[in-house]
Amino acid sequence: MTLEDFQRRLRDFADERDWQQFHTPKNLAMALAGEAGELLELFQWLTPEQSAQVTRDPSTGENVRYELADVLAYLLRLADVLEIDLMAALDEKMTLNAAKYPVELAKGNARKYDQLGQEDQ
Amino acid sequence: MTLEDFQRRLRDFADERDWQQFHTPKNLAMALAGEAGELLELFQWLTPEQSAQVTRDPSTGENVRYELADVLAYLLRLADVLEIDLMAALDEKMTLNAAKYPVELAKGNARKYDQLGQEDQ
Amino acid sequence: MTLEDFQRRLRDFADERDWQQFHTPKNLAMALAGEAGELLELFQWLTPEQSAQVTRDPSTGENVRYELADVLAYLLRLADVLEIDLMAALDEKMTLNAAKYPVELAKGNARKYDQLGQEDQ
Amino acid sequence: MTLEDFQRRLRDFADERDWQQFHTPKNLAMALAGEAGELLELFQWLTPEQSAQVTRDPSTGENVRYELADVLAYLLRLADVLEIDLMAALDEKMTLNAAKYPVELAKGNARKYDQLGQEDQ
Repeated sequence: MTLEDFQRRLRDFADERDWQQFHTPKNLAMALAGEAGELLELFQWLTPEQSAQVTRDPSTGENVRYELADVLAYLLRLADVLEIDLMAALDEKMTLNAAKYPVELAKGNARKYDQLGQEDQ
Repeated sequence: MTLEDFQRRLRDFADERDWQQFHTPKNLAMALAGEAGELLELFQWLTPEQSAQVTRDPSTGENVRYELADVLAYLLRLADVLEIDLMAALDEKMTLNAAKYPVELAKGNARKYDQLGQEDQ
Repeated sequence: MTLEDFQRRLRDFADERDWQQFHTPKNLAMALAGEAGELLELFQWLTPEQSAQVTRDPSTGENVRYELADVLAYLLRLADVLEIDLMAALDEKMTLNAAKYPVELAKGNARKYDQLGQEDQ
Repeated sequence: MTLEDFQRRLRDFADERDWQQFHTPKNLAMALAGEAGELLELFQWLTPEQSAQVTRDPSTGENVRYELADVLAYLLRLADVLEIDLMAALDEKMTLNAAKYPVELAKGNARKYDQLGQEDQ
């Protein structure tokens, strides 16, 4: 299955339930952010180390898996209703990021691109 | 390109910059939610109708495209470090949702599954 | 009761449960954003008009009230552990915003301050 | 100044700019979540220890202060347009939480109330 296949399934799912009326880009952006918020709640009290092992507990692991699936579902729906090609967008964005974060400046630090190299000045 | 291809490219991108240290699941979940928040900001003052035409303005349209790309990037990274198969997770979740939201009950309303059919009781 | 009173109560509540260990600024920022996400979920499928009447339904109204309370609780905790005076910060920010959004330019439009007046140029 | 004073100032600020039209509860919930997302971005790559010292850097400290102010501003606006008494809501919620999280069960762990005491069973 490709992303387009999932987009078609999700579109059909919405159509059958007459949910297209709710699926404005604005509402889908909210739904996506709501799912991202649920994902946060699974990680908020964990140490970095605990977060790396979150899938070892079957119940929490399943929760994380399904939250990721929910985020993906709304992301695909939103791209579908806006007719945005997600993969092409990501490809472009990665090219931009490679220019914004040159290896020699970005290596080992997490500063934003507009603050890279500031310590050296 | 497949999602796995993008995951490999994103992993290499992080490796080259020694960013794996920052990419704990906890941090990636925060970054994903942060990007979802930026997406919200593009839609927050729009009417539903305006939100449906958001890509007509080239500058806003590009912003939306890149925010979707950012969300996808962090979603792919998070799934990668947790070794979660996103497509399999979505496939499962859609099967669950089909059971939770039967067409005859869910049609035309946006209630949560645990409140479906309440008006009829 | 003042905000400081609530901050003291929330601090005592955390102390008694030995929760200070979880209440790093990072974790509290996540918890705040998680609650904001739950708030979104209450509004995501509503029309603007429905959202204005959300408190008419007692059950939804209560949910909204408690989500606002949760956001306030984490906001107060976060300001407390960072020793930030929330009211002073808001006072300053409002002065800044008055300068960024002069009435004659901002009137009736929701553009960001750095795009104000662009149509006139 | 009290919260009500700030709510009046924020209402006047919106009135003068003819922004009431944008300030539906739905839109304000999005704006609040958007600001929470910006807050996340300030913390996402920090270790727990770094996050505790985030105000030591004057520039980051100011950013954090203003993000907290922004969250408070939208929280106050939202409560204002919905005519919700934030302090009363928080007072009630804290009473509920005291019952949901009894000290003897919640002490030293961050489990959700519906999972408290599970290890003992």
